[in-house]
Amino acid sequence: MKTIGIVGLGVMGASFAQRAKALGYRVLGIDLDPDTIEYAVMRGMVDKGSTDASILLDQCDIVLLALYPRQMQKWLLRYQHDMNPGTLILEISGVKSNVTQPAQALLRDDLELLSIHPMCGRESRGIEFADPAIFDQANFIIIPQPSNSTNAIVFTSAFAKELGCKNVSVLSVEEHDRMIGFLSQLTHVIAVALMNTHENSHLVEYTGDSFRDLTRIAKINEDMWTELFLLNKDILLDEIDQFAASVQQFRDLLVREDVDAMKSAMVQSTARRKKFDR
Amino acid sequence: MKTIGIVGLGVMGASFAQRAKALGYRVLGIDLDPDTIEYAVMRGMVDKGSTDASILLDQCDIVLLALYPRQMQKWLLRYQHDMNPGTLILEISGVKSNVTQPAQALLRDDLELLSIHPMCGRESRGIEFADPAIFDQANFIIIPQPSNSTNAIVFTSAFAKELGCKNVSVLSVEEHDRMIGFLSQLTHVIAVALMNTHENSHLVEYTGDSFRDLTRIAKINEDMWTELFLLNKDILLDEIDQFAASVQQFRDLLVREDVDAMKSAMVQSTARRKKFDR
Repeated sequence: MKTIGIVGLGVMGASFAQRAKALGYRVLGIDLDPDTIEYAVMRGMVDKGSTDASILLDQCDIVLLALYPRQMQKWLLRYQHDMNPGTLILEISGVKSNVTQPAQALLRDDLELLSIHPMCGRESRGIEFADPAIFDQANFIIIPQPSNSTNAIVFTSAFAKELGCKNVSVLSVEEHDRMIGFLSQLTHVIAVALMNTHENSHLVEYTGDSFRDLTRIAKINEDMWTELFLLNKDILLDEIDQFAASVQQFRDLLVREDVDAMKSAMVQSTARRKKFDR
Repeated sequence: MKTIGIVGLGVMGASFAQRAKALGYRVLGIDLDPDTIEYAVMRGMVDKGSTDASILLDQCDIVLLALYPRQMQKWLLRYQHDMNPGTLILEISGVKSNVTQPAQALLRDDLELLSIHPMCGRESRGIEFADPAIFDQANFIIIPQPSNSTNAIVFTSAFAKELGCKNVSVLSVEEHDRMIGFLSQLTHVIAVALMNTHENSHLVEYTGDSFRDLTRIAKINEDMWTELFLLNKDILLDEIDQFAASVQQFRDLLVREDVDAMKSAMVQSTARRKKFDR
């Protein structure tokens, strides 16, 4: 029976903990907040928990870091010496370019750090929103570095499937951050911008599903996402510009009342969207 | 037992038919397509159906028009003489400014036309996507004109509740079209523009829920929505411009790395979005 230490029992970390425990892993929870530890232990999300990583890390075969990206380096500098040689560290930060390589650079030679990104989550933060069902049918991405072993990649692929994820795929850091800039970061910018377009609370009793769907992710963890946007700034700015140009292009068709071109744009979006149906 | 004639057995009309039949109304279906009529009759969605409105209309207490907005005037000119005096006609077109008043102007004095808008639907077209559950918890709007009777408004309000709708509210034509321009039309423009931003089929295996949510309505009936956008052109252009400005404003914050202002924008969007939770 393998022991997994989960560092950071937020929505993601605690969801991992619950699912891993259900799968039969021994799960140890680490968080700075004693109330969060108590919550996790009381509800049986973890087998044991502590605010002090150093007393649990030497029991772990695998350590999953579910921290804000900018905390990761600091955490590794402080706690990597408490881990056993051969410990596999998984990290789930939402961007990789300015995160993975610096972390690899400071790592002990006898530890292994593998970057992963399960494409799921919740718009609310905190352990009380944890839900192991987020992994069901989710896409799961592995972002390997030259230092990663085949063993670690094989274990992690199988672990992703155990968690309930549907597709497990591999991307380079650059491919990952470009993909995330479009699929995840741009969509959050759109949702925030739409929600902030103008005052709209008087519209609640009239709304349908469209507006609710487009703004679900406008409920956003401002600390984490500001960090993620800045770490992927150049790519995100480029994606925003391409999207803004696409909006303007459609606007021009409407101004000119170009019925055929408007319909073509909708036929194209319909065809493209069909590929994304589950 | 009242008899309702439903004209146009698309997604909306056929969903109305199914729910009305379950509620105990006698339901007559009218559609230009004989296959659609056969489908509706075979599946018990309607008690009777015909491609010829004139043979069914004199049996109806209520006639619900679920037609494309530009077809409505033509249909009324052709068939209103087949209805009994006192028939209540409900119409559900997605914009009202350039639709409701012209239709009222041509109507027989002894018929009553009341504009309604149930805020629900499906992104796919056609009777096979009909689903009476779309009405559950939906918002329902009545857009009365000076010619409408209290009786018709009271009946329709109660009918909306019977259908399963949650809130029934009243708006003027102008308020309705402004609201729709933002909540419904702008959101569809955004979804289409996002889906068309650049080629993206290679991203299917990486995507999470955010992108799926924001693009669900990019699967769009191009004929109907082009018509709706043109009928509400000035308002929609204004809403697109306000949204585009909101995107640019957020983009500027990212360029300047103004962390505090980025967080404030997200705190605002989060607070606003919470009001729209069901």
